[in-house]
Amino acid sequence: MNRSKTNKKVAVLLCGSGFKDGSEIRESVATLLALSQCGAQYQCFAPDALQHHVVNCLTGEPAVGEARNMLVEAARIARGSVRAITELKVSNYDALMIPGGFGVAKNLCDFASQGSGGHARLDVADVIQAFHQARKPIGAICIAPALVALTLRGAALELTLGETCEASQEIEKLGHKHIVMSVTECHVDRKNFFVTTPAYMIDDAPIHEVFSGIEKCVSAVINLTDL
Amino acid sequence: MNRSKTNKKVAVLLCGSGFKDGSEIRESVATLLALSQCGAQYQCFAPDALQHHVVNCLTGEPAVGEARNMLVEAARIARGSVRAITELKVSNYDALMIPGGFGVAKNLCDFASQGSGGHARLDVADVIQAFHQARKPIGAICIAPALVALTLRGAALELTLGETCEASQEIEKLGHKHIVMSVTECHVDRKNFFVTTPAYMIDDAPIHEVFSGIEKCVSAVINLTDL
Repeated sequence: MNRSKTNKKVAVLLCGSGFKDGSEIRESVATLLALSQCGAQYQCFAPDALQHHVVNCLTGEPAVGEARNMLVEAARIARGSVRAITELKVSNYDALMIPGGFGVAKNLCDFASQGSGGHARLDVADVIQAFHQARKPIGAICIAPALVALTLRGAALELTLGETCEASQEIEKLGHKHIVMSVTECHVDRKNFFVTTPAYMIDDAPIHEVFSGIEKCVSAVINLTDL
Repeated sequence: MNRSKTNKKVAVLLCGSGFKDGSEIRESVATLLALSQCGAQYQCFAPDALQHHVVNCLTGEPAVGEARNMLVEAARIARGSVRAITELKVSNYDALMIPGGFGVAKNLCDFASQGSGGHARLDVADVIQAFHQARKPIGAICIAPALVALTLRGAALELTLGETCEASQEIEKLGHKHIVMSVTECHVDRKNFFVTTPAYMIDDAPIHEVFSGIEKCVSAVINLTDL
């Protein structure tokens, strides 16, 4: 994409900093990098609230007694430039990007424990619904499509989580359609202005393939802002 | 670089996860991405020890009473695949990459408080000296050249921190030479097999320009492994 040809403003929704309890760091950085490469401006947002829990990302075990705030931890990725999600005015942005990570399924909604019976945080649901109603594109990476699927229950979304899996089956219970795709691809649901890419749903994918998929997802989102 | 033409093994030295108290997240991810793009294998390492302190990256203030371990926090960037620096056998690797972040100047050495009078952690100094003595290339990003400069005091290194600044003046007191460069460039010291790029020493640089400099740094490091 020619950098000089776009000057879109994109909100990026984070929820901490780390694949086990917050936003997946590499997917978040790849999102910002791809946005910058195509000349878009971005602003990071996160809920100003505690994470569901803290996980020791070396052992995979919960760090009992530790508490971290989503907004404060997201500032590690955002280099301090992150705002509370309650300050997000949808009219100021052309699109929304949501990187993945377990935090999306544990902090932004309870999909990790409740599956198709889960719900998004109200402040997060408000933002997703507002972008959707304004027909502004939403890009969702890795497990983040599940958050959108819970929020837009009646929308009959098309989305990918990579391979068929327990999570994709839960999402189909909500009336959405799961499409199998590889890590370097993205799926564009033109009816719903919704773009998804598997990223680290393919757990052992090389980072440059994850980036390739996210680059295509970001590019498709930016293209949709002109329709 | 043609991915099929290289199969180098590169050790990446981390020291936490966050620009104010650990490894700069974006520089670390960019390093792994650039290595993967040129077909190199990487393994992350970090000291298994507490960070100098923890900083709230939203406010910039120290988080009094909080303690975090460099290895455990680095696992957030490494997706769990990080090993203690004491397990790093230099004979198993072709090169060393050190992303920046304040943690490099506070956790891996005390350059942040002591300047040219500072010293590296012994386990870190051992690793840097071993790569240097084996004539295996070292790539250092952002403030990380200061760590190498403290460790290799007599080597008369050439390096860049971007613009002339207090840190570059401290480094020149050690007999090294600072070269002014832009964020998208890297400097190659062929005599010392040492490659540096400014990255977020240019605080407000767009992320795609930071990545461009790191990509060149990684590429130059890989090329030096064949000399």
